[in-house]
Amino acid sequence: MSRYWSALTRALTPYVPGEQPRIDNLIKLNTNENPYGPSPRVLAAIRDAASDTLRLYPDPNAGALKSTLAAYHGVDANQVFVGNGSDEVLAHAFIGLLKHERPLWMPDISYSFYPVYCGLYDITHCLVPLASDFSIRPEDYLPRGNERAGAIVFANPNAPTGRLLAPGAVENIVAANLDAVVLVDEAYVDFGGHNDNGNSDGNSVLSLIGRYPNLLVVRTFSKSRALAGLRVGYAIGNAELIAGLERIKNSFNSYPLDRLTLAGAIASVEDDEHFRASCRKVIASRETLSARLRELGFEVLPSAANFIFARAPLHDAATLAATLRQHAIIVRHFRTPRIEQFLRITVGTDEACAHLVDVLADEMRPKDLSRPTGHTS
Amino acid sequence: MSRYWSALTRALTPYVPGEQPRIDNLIKLNTNENPYGPSPRVLAAIRDAASDTLRLYPDPNAGALKSTLAAYHGVDANQVFVGNGSDEVLAHAFIGLLKHERPLWMPDISYSFYPVYCGLYDITHCLVPLASDFSIRPEDYLPRGNERAGAIVFANPNAPTGRLLAPGAVENIVAANLDAVVLVDEAYVDFGGHNDNGNSDGNSVLSLIGRYPNLLVVRTFSKSRALAGLRVGYAIGNAELIAGLERIKNSFNSYPLDRLTLAGAIASVEDDEHFRASCRKVIASRETLSARLRELGFEVLPSAANFIFARAPLHDAATLAATLRQHAIIVRHFRTPRIEQFLRITVGTDEACAHLVDVLADEMRPKDLSRPTGHTS
Repeated sequence: MSRYWSALTRALTPYVPGEQPRIDNLIKLNTNENPYGPSPRVLAAIRDAASDTLRLYPDPNAGALKSTLAAYHGVDANQVFVGNGSDEVLAHAFIGLLKHERPLWMPDISYSFYPVYCGLYDITHCLVPLASDFSIRPEDYLPRGNERAGAIVFANPNAPTGRLLAPGAVENIVAANLDAVVLVDEAYVDFGGHNDNGNSDGNSVLSLIGRYPNLLVVRTFSKSRALAGLRVGYAIGNAELIAGLERIKNSFNSYPLDRLTLAGAIASVEDDEHFRASCRKVIASRETLSARLRELGFEVLPSAANFIFARAPLHDAATLAATLRQHAIIVRHFRTPRIEQFLRITVGTDEACAHLVDVLADEMRPKDLSRPTGHTS
Repeated sequence: MSRYWSALTRALTPYVPGEQPRIDNLIKLNTNENPYGPSPRVLAAIRDAASDTLRLYPDPNAGALKSTLAAYHGVDANQVFVGNGSDEVLAHAFIGLLKHERPLWMPDISYSFYPVYCGLYDITHCLVPLASDFSIRPEDYLPRGNERAGAIVFANPNAPTGRLLAPGAVENIVAANLDAVVLVDEAYVDFGGHNDNGNSDGNSVLSLIGRYPNLLVVRTFSKSRALAGLRVGYAIGNAELIAGLERIKNSFNSYPLDRLTLAGAIASVEDDEHFRASCRKVIASRETLSARLRELGFEVLPSAANFIFARAPLHDAATLAATLRQHAIIVRHFRTPRIEQFLRITVGTDEACAHLVDVLADEMRPKDLSRPTGHTS
């Protein structure tokens, strides 16, 4: 603590991101990165943008990227907001749209950055417990007499559970709270599978934007677009909501997206084939990994994301995570009530997943103490 | 206004950045960009970083960049904070270090984003008028009995005036306010000329960091490093101040600097020769431009920056700016009390500056109405 810190700085409990160790040959399944790289067109666009023009500011309004996203999703450019990763988009939404006199409602288990934003911006919030199967119960988010939300936020599919709330159930929440902004964080929605018709996908509520002025959908390029290293997130919603986000952004940082990022992000959206193929591969690997882990005795929550959330009833999660680490495999373990016996495992390449399953199988096998284990660390 | 906006969003007056028009052959002297591009080593480093590893998050702590900057400036890595442009660094400093019960003191004329941050974070502030020659009077920033600053912020050289406060005078302010953070925004300090001994430069107060725990110096890569398009800023100060900034950053966005930006920024610091040569060229052009404008009758404030701030007593600044625009030259004109008759002109290439002077000379010449002017627009 320092006398120079503001009272707020002293009171904060910052977010702790998944570690990014610098270890060779690490199998990194802890921060939900995509095992397959971005489109080659992204890399080419970035190399082209690495030019003398870096001396000039980027477009503060990111107009070309917004137009590209708008065309892709079939909305107007003034219904699109972009930011330096979806974390920045979320931060602006919390202070700009989710802070009201009535409390912000959110699941007790969801993206752990949400309560941190509430601390940063002094937002009263109310944690709504997930059901015992870790699903979101839509009925818990309906107004009850005078008990109404000032705003609502949740991830769908939820993190770190991976569980999906069906779009119809999300719509019920949005429709029942027309006075409150409902922010649906669709960071992982692309791993729910895509429809064949155009760019819409089955699990998103993006198509409801036109009907509900209180719905804000947040997306990221970090997972399905394999661009965690580039930092791009966006929000889609009614033009009024977007204008509110722009007011916050323009009071914080005029140019959050650099020229390279803008070029790379546009190229990513333009290579839809690469994007869809990458999502399909991850989905297939997820199903295989889920099945293998269930064979080992894991309880695996149904996942619509690029990670699975699983617990082994007879094995301590922290111990399993430590064993995996000895084999240079890292997964995420949260020391959080209700979920401290779960591991969140990012879906990697099939090879990485198979290696993970082998190590877990070895660890979980009833031990014959007379036999050397053959482990090396 | 929208019922979905928070009360804060409704009350905000966002910052208005200089325009970034998309006009061919424009002479763009309105946002203090560097006329000379970044080091070729920066471009090479970015192209190398445009790889499959973009699927992975960047180092959330930006350790390599911090170490590079620390070595360059002769401080420890825990005395360095980095952000997505100095605007983001400033924003975090305002909420994290400059918000206290006593008001924040700042010049009435300085970087116009400062009062916007105060609006965003509800910071009580007090505007201290510049002297009539637009200089900062250090005596105005000394505590007077119970009248003390909660914190102090100013740019040095100041913007948009370009005037420098001598380092000794800055030190007097810092030394007299040991209970208050003094943020010195040195966005333009590299254009004051460099000493020959090492990396220190004559006008910076960076060398005072070790002696004053309340001093925070903020820098940007946008001007002297010709990387406005990359978005990198940093702060140097006592480790306690930096830790406060990290708390805010980690409650806002874990990964504000992308992989390409980190690679490019490191390469920029490593090519000191390119950097110094670029600064020298801009300084020489500034002196030439100042002299030519004085010949035309302009009052030119002494500038230690990469722009000049000047007024022509018999000519309306808005009219001059409009005339320049007809010739595809844009400069910045602020419709702000005290400075509404000034133009802020970025130092461009010698060719661009000469063209600007020619257009102004033509416009300001006493008109012979019997003669066609030959202007084209």
